[in-house]
Amino acid sequence: MRFRSFFFSSSIFSLSHSRSPSLSSSRFSSLSAAMSPALEKSRQGNGGCNDDSKSKVTVVGSGNWGSVAAKLIASNALKLPSFHDEVRMWVFEEVLPNGEKLNDVINKTNENVKYLPGIKLGRNVVADPDLENAVKDANMLVFVTPHQFMDGICKKLDGKITGDVEAISLVKGMEVKKEGPCMISSLISKQLGINCCVLMGANIANEIAVEKFSEATVGYRGSREIADTWVQLFSTPYFMVTPVHDVEGVELCGTLKNVVAIAAGFVDGLEMGNNTKAAIMRIGLREMKALSKLLFPSVKDSTFFESCGVADVITTCLGGRNRRVAEAFAKSRGKRSFDELEAEMLQGQKLQGVSTAREVYEVLKHCGWLEMFPLFSTVHQICTGRLQPEAIVQYRENKL
Amino acid sequence: MRFRSFFFSSSIFSLSHSRSPSLSSSRFSSLSAAMSPALEKSRQGNGGCNDDSKSKVTVVGSGNWGSVAAKLIASNALKLPSFHDEVRMWVFEEVLPNGEKLNDVINKTNENVKYLPGIKLGRNVVADPDLENAVKDANMLVFVTPHQFMDGICKKLDGKITGDVEAISLVKGMEVKKEGPCMISSLISKQLGINCCVLMGANIANEIAVEKFSEATVGYRGSREIADTWVQLFSTPYFMVTPVHDVEGVELCGTLKNVVAIAAGFVDGLEMGNNTKAAIMRIGLREMKALSKLLFPSVKDSTFFESCGVADVITTCLGGRNRRVAEAFAKSRGKRSFDELEAEMLQGQKLQGVSTAREVYEVLKHCGWLEMFPLFSTVHQICTGRLQPEAIVQYRENKL
Repeated sequence: MRFRSFFFSSSIFSLSHSRSPSLSSSRFSSLSAAMSPALEKSRQGNGGCNDDSKSKVTVVGSGNWGSVAAKLIASNALKLPSFHDEVRMWVFEEVLPNGEKLNDVINKTNENVKYLPGIKLGRNVVADPDLENAVKDANMLVFVTPHQFMDGICKKLDGKITGDVEAISLVKGMEVKKEGPCMISSLISKQLGINCCVLMGANIANEIAVEKFSEATVGYRGSREIADTWVQLFSTPYFMVTPVHDVEGVELCGTLKNVVAIAAGFVDGLEMGNNTKAAIMRIGLREMKALSKLLFPSVKDSTFFESCGVADVITTCLGGRNRRVAEAFAKSRGKRSFDELEAEMLQGQKLQGVSTAREVYEVLKHCGWLEMFPLFSTVHQICTGRLQPEAIVQYRENKL
Repeated sequence: MRFRSFFFSSSIFSLSHSRSPSLSSSRFSSLSAAMSPALEKSRQGNGGCNDDSKSKVTVVGSGNWGSVAAKLIASNALKLPSFHDEVRMWVFEEVLPNGEKLNDVINKTNENVKYLPGIKLGRNVVADPDLENAVKDANMLVFVTPHQFMDGICKKLDGKITGDVEAISLVKGMEVKKEGPCMISSLISKQLGINCCVLMGANIANEIAVEKFSEATVGYRGSREIADTWVQLFSTPYFMVTPVHDVEGVELCGTLKNVVAIAAGFVDGLEMGNNTKAAIMRIGLREMKALSKLLFPSVKDSTFFESCGVADVITTCLGGRNRRVAEAFAKSRGKRSFDELEAEMLQGQKLQGVSTAREVYEVLKHCGWLEMFPLFSTVHQICTGRLQPEAIVQYRENKL
């Protein structure tokens, strides 16, 4: 894939965004066609960086998406002179069925055999089961764990992060509490005292792992420079990353789209057709935008045209487990509960869409906004059995 | 379906748009549950309208979409006091296999047996094979024919339209000429000397015919009042219409989305997965927006969040013949031509997406904009065999 120079980097996107550094060099494609990344980096010299000034990256998390993120980052760290070659990855220790430890196997085989089997992460990825040790000396932290682990991780790292450290969160599904959403990027910023960007988008991890063309959005606050560094670290010819100055908008997209996916699943289960599905996805996108702007007036409309917005809604409503289980729920005409279907279809994993719909409903009720968000409200009421799945396109009087 | 009062009318949409008159009356749902539309209209009285002040509607066109439009309009004309009950429909005369004339059969059976079999249009729809007679006395003209017929129709009606007449175009697929797009609404306005709105959206006719929930967008220039009248005439509980003050944006969406559908078909044919498809749809929507704004600076970003924008892109890229034939083209790795596949798959119908892609390419080349629109440019070059289908996500040097 390195041999391709994708046209998208020198296109319409440069109308509103400067090109990402890793794609803008015309030397990149010709060089990369001729030599290995390590040779290329060596030939480019250290770019004025001595070892101390090079950025050290640690990936905190090692699930399916975390492993793919490590692969993307590792390939760029090797190529780019401003980064240390080595990329550390904190891997929650598990003993595999054959008795081996997951960290040992990753370091021996260069594969996360449990969460991303068959994909080489890059020889420069080093797994480490010790969280504190993994982040030691790193000045770029990539958080990519299930959101319920983030509170504990931040507490464990409290006081351990010193110096000029930047973070990015790939964590989807933050909690939406009555007093407002609990943004993971804010949690990281506040608890660790560091700046935190986010990366979201239409990113089914297994498709990116096999280098199918995808896009993502980096949301940042403050300095554009650090956003460009993250873009540089993640971008590959098959993974196009765009920075937008709207961390809240990007992060809320990553959570709220799961509620829309539940609605789309109902439409599929009831076989309502493509017009209805498109209408429900559009109304969902519109409610995502409206709610985000009510919660954070700084949120921009244009964010919803980015990968984190419309594209992630599309991917999640075409595939994805939220849509799939909601489809099964609607097919059963609500006779089987989400808990039952989850247990049967997802081997104990929980659906984010159902809990997010409940949390969003509580916010809407608390703020007196229920009538302004009929789709979000109705999804929750269908999930809890108060409305039939058919209600996704109708309002039966006195039930809202 | 009349018994449902859809919640969407009293929701978030009223943040930016006033409710459509036919949905805003709380009396509507209770009344309609209790009596027939004719009785309801009679009970409501003539609403201060004498027969002369009532609007008379003629639908010019009677294909699949035209017949569904007539059905929607006919149901509202019966109910609303400001409209004449009778809705005329100009039907291009055809002799059916059994020797009967299509106009006679429609007037006898109340069905367009050729283009919308099995669906009653409403007893108040009157088919007329004589174009001039059909539009005589009408003050609201609904144009819904294949776009290549519009020039001839306008010429035939030249000088025949007098008085205070309003038009709306449901015609998709206008021509995009080097000197700019030839908007059907402009053609109608200029040739007939009347104001012309447009109605576009995620509207697969057969799904609306069986009353599945759908949305549409009315684009208007000038007076909002006339837009509200069109919204009133088309809206039903299962067909939600929103007016936007951007006739060019709405109309361009209806044409350009077919180019995006060709791109989506390539992605499907190459089995590139959902991330890639979502990315290509998003980039397509973005190029639609950028090109529309370059051609008409008055075009609004928000139009692309409406049904005519994101929802129509979704519907067209999920189903639709443009996507389907492009998928077959990509599966053959470009070995079978579009002409050949069209002939085989569409019984002689022509694909709008392929010709629109060519027309758009000519505009882009003429204006020096090719590099700003890599997706539109690449679709055309794949269609003509200059690039392989795989190029939809890549740029091979010196081939653009």
